[in-house]
Amino acid sequence: MPLAFLKPIQSNFILTKGDDLNEHQLIREFFSDVGSNFLSEQGIVLGIGDDAASYNPPDGHEIILSCDTSIEGVHFFKDQLVEDIAYRSVAVALSDLAACGAKPCWFMVSLTMENNDNYWLSKFSKGLQEIANEFRIPLIGGDTTKGPLVITIQVGGIVKKGEMITRAGARAGDLIFVSGTVGEAFLGLTQFKNKALVKKSVDKFIRPVPRFDLRNILLRSASSAIDISDGLAQDLQQICFASNVGARINFDKIPFPKNITFEEKKHILSTGDDYEICFTVHEKSKSDLLKHSDGLIFSQIGYITQEKDFIIENKNQPLDISEGYSHF
Amino acid sequence: MPLAFLKPIQSNFILTKGDDLNEHQLIREFFSDVGSNFLSEQGIVLGIGDDAASYNPPDGHEIILSCDTSIEGVHFFKDQLVEDIAYRSVAVALSDLAACGAKPCWFMVSLTMENNDNYWLSKFSKGLQEIANEFRIPLIGGDTTKGPLVITIQVGGIVKKGEMITRAGARAGDLIFVSGTVGEAFLGLTQFKNKALVKKSVDKFIRPVPRFDLRNILLRSASSAIDISDGLAQDLQQICFASNVGARINFDKIPFPKNITFEEKKHILSTGDDYEICFTVHEKSKSDLLKHSDGLIFSQIGYITQEKDFIIENKNQPLDISEGYSHF
Repeated sequence: MPLAFLKPIQSNFILTKGDDLNEHQLIREFFSDVGSNFLSEQGIVLGIGDDAASYNPPDGHEIILSCDTSIEGVHFFKDQLVEDIAYRSVAVALSDLAACGAKPCWFMVSLTMENNDNYWLSKFSKGLQEIANEFRIPLIGGDTTKGPLVITIQVGGIVKKGEMITRAGARAGDLIFVSGTVGEAFLGLTQFKNKALVKKSVDKFIRPVPRFDLRNILLRSASSAIDISDGLAQDLQQICFASNVGARINFDKIPFPKNITFEEKKHILSTGDDYEICFTVHEKSKSDLLKHSDGLIFSQIGYITQEKDFIIENKNQPLDISEGYSHF
Repeated sequence: MPLAFLKPIQSNFILTKGDDLNEHQLIREFFSDVGSNFLSEQGIVLGIGDDAASYNPPDGHEIILSCDTSIEGVHFFKDQLVEDIAYRSVAVALSDLAACGAKPCWFMVSLTMENNDNYWLSKFSKGLQEIANEFRIPLIGGDTTKGPLVITIQVGGIVKKGEMITRAGARAGDLIFVSGTVGEAFLGLTQFKNKALVKKSVDKFIRPVPRFDLRNILLRSASSAIDISDGLAQDLQQICFASNVGARINFDKIPFPKNITFEEKKHILSTGDDYEICFTVHEKSKSDLLKHSDGLIFSQIGYITQEKDFIIENKNQPLDISEGYSHF
């Protein structure tokens, strides 16, 4: 049942003369059913269809909340498939929940767009449905507005009380790990721009997968965690900043993709779009971590230090990398 | 402590050469403190400063969730005060919680903007702080992105389990009430555009106040409720649609502002921006409602019917009004 979407003052759906569908029909067709199979499983009392949604959280849990905005030309491009744009917008928001060890429960979509193009909307809805199915989460509300294309996704998840993994728990001596490879999405973006598409890398940029598969491992072993969407060096520095510690990284241990140059590797350290997780583990938990890795791939790349320096060591020399990365 | 705001891939704050403040300093200065006095009172375990926020909801409650996007030229204008733009953006999102009988608990801000102008941000932050103080709610996270000015506010509140007031509870014979006056914001917008400012009306447009003061009355007496941000006629029809009933309204009983023409009254019925609440009450609850009104002003304007017609009666004739209103 339509809801927050039914608000024409914030919608370009209603009363636009000449449209085949009115707002109610559009919502019914494109949004009200997204992930609706998972409403009751996730404790949603009331989804799309009223002034607001209602959620009945399970006892003994905290609710983890985040939101992320995606913009054309920054986070996605005009020539991408609309399904992929929708999927990616939700995935990058969910990645923040994955980094906290949370189980995802629901999402909301605020969509600002120039026109209510039925074809575009059907593709957008398809992308939303795909990620909703993948993580068993319902779309529970949102808002539609006429304006430049801006997609804001708000996500909610749960952890047992006190179990949220934050950036602030790293201690001197902790080992630093990163999941998967670092830089695949950067390669994918480059290949996408050059139209030289290598599926594996391009997929990493176009359809990043939030690493909820690491959840059990993180909850079991991690003292701190962050997703590396802003670049490994910068995001690990956020852990150091929040935990009031330093870090020493071994450049050779970083799991870069194969066949890239030294300069590319350096660049990748301060660029983003990888939705892998960097996490720290108390030294004594390492064997337990490895025992329960269950085929998941992660690399030990360094350790946390009492001294608040952030050093990436390459052949016994500190590597000079730029301090961060800006899309602008 | 900075958090979701610390994500430069979605921020125009970091590494913009020549700025006086870096992103961390900006967040600390403009966002991290907004409503922070209310964090523990509202059960926020972790606010701004990590990948996501964490909320510990009170036992026995449902969480009510909504979001609203505000766009320049549609929901606010360039020549408004920035504090007012910030205040209004949050107020209109909160209004959805008020219509559900919810107590507001927290909000998140997704801000897309062209430049990180410190003066603009300080004013924006001031407006956020004003509404945070008014309703004792902390800002718990959000996102900043470079792009056209778009403000999405996500809000969370609570009701005791099973007590959410929806659009779907109206029954034949229920009496229909509306709070305050209907059309003041329309007059305010007109006056604002004409620069003929009459403070009371203009304030209704510029700084609408979500009607949380009606909460006790709504929870005590209302069978259904909606805010009339899209126009009384259209929003009441949403109640009829969701409740599978009709309505008969007495035009003379609608609390229009004084000194407006018949044509203006007709227009107001299908225009929006009033953040008053339209609600229905079982006939037998009327005396209880009036007994507990405690100085709050609301008007009985009609009743719910079994027949699914929506009729506004003026001097025994059905009034012909347009079906709704579009800003486009």
